[in-house]
Amino acid sequence: MQLQDYIRNIPDFPRRGIQFKDITPLLKSPDAFNEAIDAFARYCAPRSIDLIAGIEARGFLLAAPLADRLEKPLVPVRKRGKLPFDTYSVSYALEYGEDSVEIHQDAVDAGQRVLVVDDLIATGGTVAATAKLMEKAGAAVDAVAVLVELVDLDGRAALKGYEVYSQIQI
Amino acid sequence: MQLQDYIRNIPDFPRRGIQFKDITPLLKSPDAFNEAIDAFARYCAPRSIDLIAGIEARGFLLAAPLADRLEKPLVPVRKRGKLPFDTYSVSYALEYGEDSVEIHQDAVDAGQRVLVVDDLIATGGTVAATAKLMEKAGAAVDAVAVLVELVDLDGRAALKGYEVYSQIQI
Repeated sequence: MQLQDYIRNIPDFPRRGIQFKDITPLLKSPDAFNEAIDAFARYCAPRSIDLIAGIEARGFLLAAPLADRLEKPLVPVRKRGKLPFDTYSVSYALEYGEDSVEIHQDAVDAGQRVLVVDDLIATGGTVAATAKLMEKAGAAVDAVAVLVELVDLDGRAALKGYEVYSQIQI
Repeated sequence: MQLQDYIRNIPDFPRRGIQFKDITPLLKSPDAFNEAIDAFARYCAPRSIDLIAGIEARGFLLAAPLADRLEKPLVPVRKRGKLPFDTYSVSYALEYGEDSVEIHQDAVDAGQRVLVVDDLIATGGTVAATAKLMEKAGAAVDAVAVLVELVDLDGRAALKGYEVYSQIQI
């Protein structure tokens, strides 16, 4: 099975010039979805990971079944203002303006090793901010794991010092 | 295990007078999370369900592991403007203004039986709009399944005609 066949390219979304990578065909195929979660689980097997952090919203779709299979705590990383309890926050630059990622202050214990999960790395901004967020909370980033990596955008440069695992490179 | 012990009440969030039900303590406990997904899976076992629809964003955290365990297609139901391909859309009233839920037009096949999953039913507006969305796409709603039901808000009135399963009634 080629997982890449289940990623649909949508030109000019959300705006002109962006080639959006749509993972809904993969979610719709139980075989492809199972293979993707299996691959994440195989990647984790030899590692010491204490918890799984999934980035809102599409990262939740991958992080949650992985946490369920590995029986690890699941931490939702959310955009500004969505979490109701005391939070840690890290801002990051967007093309115009900025946004923040947040976790609850009691989501992570000091010294825990975290796997950061998202659907895709483009420029790496959101994932890099999430990695910094975990460190702000006293945790260590074991690795970053994504389904799709857009290699031309060189998100790995923004993630220097972190191990990055991607299943599909396009 | 009392799953209710893993739901944290946050007064006055997102605004004064709202008692927000925070599911992050449940997500952080592998035992509680496993029990919640198990309960959904047990509910589904005797039913004829073809696919699992999860409502953005917290619904993704429950729908995705359930779809993974049941080996059923997973359909993300998203708020307006987030999905990149051709969509069906259903609007619903908010306290001020309105919002919409959307799915891709190729997400659901005619006649399929759908389980609609979210974290919580309050007034039932989002879930009722999602049920209508599935019917607009030609599918049938087998049932609605949530972790938490706020019984005083009587969301079941908005969901008349649909079977509703909730794990925690508060």
